[in-house]
Amino acid sequence: MKKFVLVPDSFKGTMTSIEICNIMKQSIISYFPMSKVVSLPVADGGEGSVDSFLSAMGGKKIHVTVSGPYGKDMESFYGVVNNGKTAVIEMASCAGLPLIDGNLHPDKTTTYGVGQLIVHAVTHGCEEIIVGLGGSCTNDAGTGAAAAAGIKFIDENGRTFVPVGGTLSNIRKIDFSGLCPALKGVRITAMSDINNPLYGQNGAAYIFGAQKGADEKMIELLDNGLKNISGVIGDTVGKDVSQIPGSGAAGGMGAGMLAFFDARLRMGIDVVLDTVGFDGIAKDADMIFTGEGKLDSQSLHGKVVAGVAQRAKKIDKPVVAIVGDIGDSIEPIYDMGVSAVFSINRVAVDFEKARERSKNDLKLTMNNLMLFLSGLYK
Amino acid sequence: MKKFVLVPDSFKGTMTSIEICNIMKQSIISYFPMSKVVSLPVADGGEGSVDSFLSAMGGKKIHVTVSGPYGKDMESFYGVVNNGKTAVIEMASCAGLPLIDGNLHPDKTTTYGVGQLIVHAVTHGCEEIIVGLGGSCTNDAGTGAAAAAGIKFIDENGRTFVPVGGTLSNIRKIDFSGLCPALKGVRITAMSDINNPLYGQNGAAYIFGAQKGADEKMIELLDNGLKNISGVIGDTVGKDVSQIPGSGAAGGMGAGMLAFFDARLRMGIDVVLDTVGFDGIAKDADMIFTGEGKLDSQSLHGKVVAGVAQRAKKIDKPVVAIVGDIGDSIEPIYDMGVSAVFSINRVAVDFEKARERSKNDLKLTMNNLMLFLSGLYK
Repeated sequence: MKKFVLVPDSFKGTMTSIEICNIMKQSIISYFPMSKVVSLPVADGGEGSVDSFLSAMGGKKIHVTVSGPYGKDMESFYGVVNNGKTAVIEMASCAGLPLIDGNLHPDKTTTYGVGQLIVHAVTHGCEEIIVGLGGSCTNDAGTGAAAAAGIKFIDENGRTFVPVGGTLSNIRKIDFSGLCPALKGVRITAMSDINNPLYGQNGAAYIFGAQKGADEKMIELLDNGLKNISGVIGDTVGKDVSQIPGSGAAGGMGAGMLAFFDARLRMGIDVVLDTVGFDGIAKDADMIFTGEGKLDSQSLHGKVVAGVAQRAKKIDKPVVAIVGDIGDSIEPIYDMGVSAVFSINRVAVDFEKARERSKNDLKLTMNNLMLFLSGLYK
Repeated sequence: MKKFVLVPDSFKGTMTSIEICNIMKQSIISYFPMSKVVSLPVADGGEGSVDSFLSAMGGKKIHVTVSGPYGKDMESFYGVVNNGKTAVIEMASCAGLPLIDGNLHPDKTTTYGVGQLIVHAVTHGCEEIIVGLGGSCTNDAGTGAAAAAGIKFIDENGRTFVPVGGTLSNIRKIDFSGLCPALKGVRITAMSDINNPLYGQNGAAYIFGAQKGADEKMIELLDNGLKNISGVIGDTVGKDVSQIPGSGAAGGMGAGMLAFFDARLRMGIDVVLDTVGFDGIAKDADMIFTGEGKLDSQSLHGKVVAGVAQRAKKIDKPVVAIVGDIGDSIEPIYDMGVSAVFSINRVAVDFEKARERSKNDLKLTMNNLMLFLSGLYK
């Protein structure tokens, strides 16, 4: 009996990692009906991350009513895996761009609901929290989430308020004394593949503000707010979080997770592989399939294929990457541990046409690899 | 030790079959240095066919001075394989389009040189002749070649002449009595992948006349000439060759080969596989690689991949097809004997861009298949 492990990233704009796992698994099973296939779809922190973890690990989805981006109650959710010990939260579930349907005001939206989800999880027994940063419509540096967890933000008049992107500049003090006691000892990890600092020309407002609806003037306002909260955090906890790579993720949520929740910021692929227990699953695998939309020189740094390959190399397992495009200068990927790379492209057409055929083309590529394998095994 | 057999068609407009064999072989050897690789590049009958046979079988190239398309002496060649027993002639070598450099007059050009090559071969000991029809600039129904072999064409005044496309209508009688005696008992095979009849709307003149430089009026003239020679052939030898598929190949050379040289018309892939002794070579192969520029529903009928697969299936050998594009509805190809199909496309770009990258992309695809294989063999 053969054992196959599937750990693909999504192909951005064409297929989710769960869809890719399903197509791959179906193909493998149809040629090797007696094989064991373990699907570990990779979550990138954005929309769908909870489903990816649940799909990989089993577990349950907890539905909770929390504040939405504009403070109105809404039904959100998180996932519980690891026998109830680990909660997986995607901030897009209550602070995500698709929720506000084009009503874009990053100066007014809040991450309050994300804090409520975290509190719900820790008060219901979770000892570890993974928060996916991605797809957010907010720029509040996680102050909303912090407020939901009991942290107080105080203005120059000594009044407590819940900041939003447009009022971050009003914060003068931060009071941690009311922080939810259940958070004590809980390990919190924030997943993000973004390396931007909190503020400045490469910061959250300047790089991501426009796609959240900010014009030039508002970007400046948001950036000033982020700079202010960074200063107050420094005064309060004695450390500068603003330059830590990823602190500018999700409208400064990266910085907020670091400062208010004592979280670690980690790349999605590392969090996934650790959380699902990849090394244990892969140690008796015959072949590992991974993949991403485009394999190129950027893929060598912290992306899914490289991350999977490096782990697999340590345990001497073959890794086959199934990708959309194969760029030039990918040779180092072989040294990293990738055994072979195949593109799903099967006709010479441009991407607009190729994307429509991607599911069928992935299926055909997998089928042919399985045929190739079964030809060898006969 | 593994044994690989390579039998690819050319990728039209991008790579010759010899180039493809070389890239495939280099890739295989670099991953399996101890393996045996047998390259059998497929000749399609056109330019390069002699080189393909020589590359596959060894042998020598014989250089002969013969008449060119306009009757002027030129140096041409044919190949001798099979210990001097078999001659391989490509008619393009002395009646080919590239020789006349745009000086296109299919009413005036002759296949006389082709007949001289045939006569040279049989008078130098060859017992079998393969003539590749393809890439011709002629429309003389092979009458020029026949004249070179001693057949006389006689007009209404009883005068013997060497017909060309524009004077086929003048033929009233054909006299076989002078036919070169050395041709007796020689098996002649004409290779062509074209199924057109000799004349009419699907005939040589109407379908291929324009690309040889004929305007509408000349096409009609040429077609009338082909119809006339067909009638005279019928009167002389008692059979109608005009409707035999392929009689319209190469300006009616197909019909001429049938009528004047008692040749068989066969598909290129069948001739190649028989001539090189494919079944014997493949019987101890571990894997057979084939390929063509585009694998689609047309490929199921008489093309290279299908031809190779059908033979390989009988001896139960795995066949992997490496192709440019993979079209839709190719599933029957698996039943025909193809184990797996891989496209060399690696980025989503259109053909104009893809063709420039084809050699590199073929190399990458082969390398990854070899890596995939070596991962399995370790």
